[in-house]
Amino acid sequence: MKVGIAGLGLIGGSLALKLVKSGHNVIAWNHRFEPYDSARKQGIVCVNSLEELAGLEPDILVLCTPLKAMDSILETLERVLLPHTTLTDVGSVKREVLSSVTKHHLRQQFVGAHPMTGNENASFAAADVHLFDAATWAVTVEGDTDFSRFLIVARLITDGAQNRFIVTDAHAHDLAAAQISHMPHVVATVLANQLVESSESNVAVALAAGSWRDMTRVAMTSPDRTQAMVEENPDNVAILVRDIARRLNEVADILDGDNSADKLVPLKRFFAEAEPYRRVRMELSKGIPAGMYSVHLDTDDDTWKAQLIQISQKGGRVEYIDAQEAHIRDFAHIR
Amino acid sequence: MKVGIAGLGLIGGSLALKLVKSGHNVIAWNHRFEPYDSARKQGIVCVNSLEELAGLEPDILVLCTPLKAMDSILETLERVLLPHTTLTDVGSVKREVLSSVTKHHLRQQFVGAHPMTGNENASFAAADVHLFDAATWAVTVEGDTDFSRFLIVARLITDGAQNRFIVTDAHAHDLAAAQISHMPHVVATVLANQLVESSESNVAVALAAGSWRDMTRVAMTSPDRTQAMVEENPDNVAILVRDIARRLNEVADILDGDNSADKLVPLKRFFAEAEPYRRVRMELSKGIPAGMYSVHLDTDDDTWKAQLIQISQKGGRVEYIDAQEAHIRDFAHIR
Repeated sequence: MKVGIAGLGLIGGSLALKLVKSGHNVIAWNHRFEPYDSARKQGIVCVNSLEELAGLEPDILVLCTPLKAMDSILETLERVLLPHTTLTDVGSVKREVLSSVTKHHLRQQFVGAHPMTGNENASFAAADVHLFDAATWAVTVEGDTDFSRFLIVARLITDGAQNRFIVTDAHAHDLAAAQISHMPHVVATVLANQLVESSESNVAVALAAGSWRDMTRVAMTSPDRTQAMVEENPDNVAILVRDIARRLNEVADILDGDNSADKLVPLKRFFAEAEPYRRVRMELSKGIPAGMYSVHLDTDDDTWKAQLIQISQKGGRVEYIDAQEAHIRDFAHIR
Repeated sequence: MKVGIAGLGLIGGSLALKLVKSGHNVIAWNHRFEPYDSARKQGIVCVNSLEELAGLEPDILVLCTPLKAMDSILETLERVLLPHTTLTDVGSVKREVLSSVTKHHLRQQFVGAHPMTGNENASFAAADVHLFDAATWAVTVEGDTDFSRFLIVARLITDGAQNRFIVTDAHAHDLAAAQISHMPHVVATVLANQLVESSESNVAVALAAGSWRDMTRVAMTSPDRTQAMVEENPDNVAILVRDIARRLNEVADILDGDNSADKLVPLKRFFAEAEPYRRVRMELSKGIPAGMYSVHLDTDDDTWKAQLIQISQKGGRVEYIDAQEAHIRDFAHIR
């Protein structure tokens, strides 16, 4: 597989390293050439322009640039991307990219993707071939997504990055991503901000153990990156953040209630509600589950999308797709 | 040093193992005798009753029982604790224990303590000699705390557990502990509860990466233990939880605002507010700082308390106390 990578930051760089390691041809472009020396030493072919990258006609071109740069890159690609090349991206929100792709008439070639990995670092210097180890991706398919384009992206993930994926659409993805990533970044920052303003901030810092450190680790992410992430998904983040606030106020109401045995029941219920999550997480912590099954995808019409989305909603993750046969690993799920 | 341990759970057991390792005599009592075989094999002397433990006249008796059991244990100790023995505890909140100690006329012998360590497990089977590695404790002193009793607790921490400590009072401790431990447990549970109820819960679980896992790790703590922790510090938790909710709603208001450049400024300010915390955490992550200084404690009156509390509020942690000379290590601090 000949893979083009646009953007050699933490994610693009790590993906490129992983693809080289798994035996694929990787051609990369970065808007600044600083990483090129190091990238070339590690087997990545580096080119001088996005036009040159597109002209080399990769099987797939992966946009790994910051979300804010996507539109101008797509504007260029509209002029130079050849029909053979399937286009994907690794952006942490999908609706914006999709609308930009649509605007630039590249929608036929495009299937969105989002690998769930990363850390608080940035830049190619921090790129790590192990960043993608055991990562799960989301692949987003829409009503007009073409199965053959989808298959190319599936192969990038399963053969290239040696990962598995779930299938969803841009809308559901952005809600789920807000829930497990963007909203938690806001919450972690709120916790850190509260500490900074506290009269006992240094006593609290001295007492901080694992629970506090874990909960505020993501507040260490570069503020600019976090802000960009939140700004691209503001409606979902706002809804979830308000819902968290409502739930917190409910707990405070319970705690402020009469000091009778009556308040123990709602408090018990509150802490018990997370039980399905505890169960799933316990099961997931045991490692990769053994259970696998196969599904024949009906690709005559759009049925394959509904099949794969429903499987994903029930905890299934695609291990690989062999022609029209999807091999699914059954992960622990909430319901 | 002859140390009595009441309660061989995760904390009591781990502390006992650490004390044995650092060459101290450890006598332990547990309300059930299941852990005794294993504990004895690891050098801990186990006795059949709290009365027997007190009768052996340890230099210090450390209460490591659940907070809910403290009052009945103190009721027994009121009858049997000998004057030589200094009493301390490792409870995660200090005001309740202090009021129980006062009720049972043991206040003269008592100095509260709280080691900041633990994990989501419980019971002696999970006890680990490394649980106390590099832990920081809080020691709580009140207006009537005796210096010689304080020194015994200081030695338990510095010579016994080979840790360092800060000095505060029960009131400030409970606020700080709510901030970095109890409140985050509530927030983590709220996040998990929201996920459980989400229409995209399994997609979200599949996409969950490090940020989500870190932020919800403490939601894995046994609900009963978390509830007990929160119930003992309800006023502080409620205040902080409401403050978090208020801050979250403020962010949601910004996100829901007009999609103009104007909203970028308050969002930028929001993410920048955590900068002092990021700086401190970066510095702390470099390991134990080199800077040390000594302070002569004025023990003729209560001045030593004010000295040590002020030092703690400025990021100092007590490395050891040699007669009246406190050796302080200067940690990164917020202001």
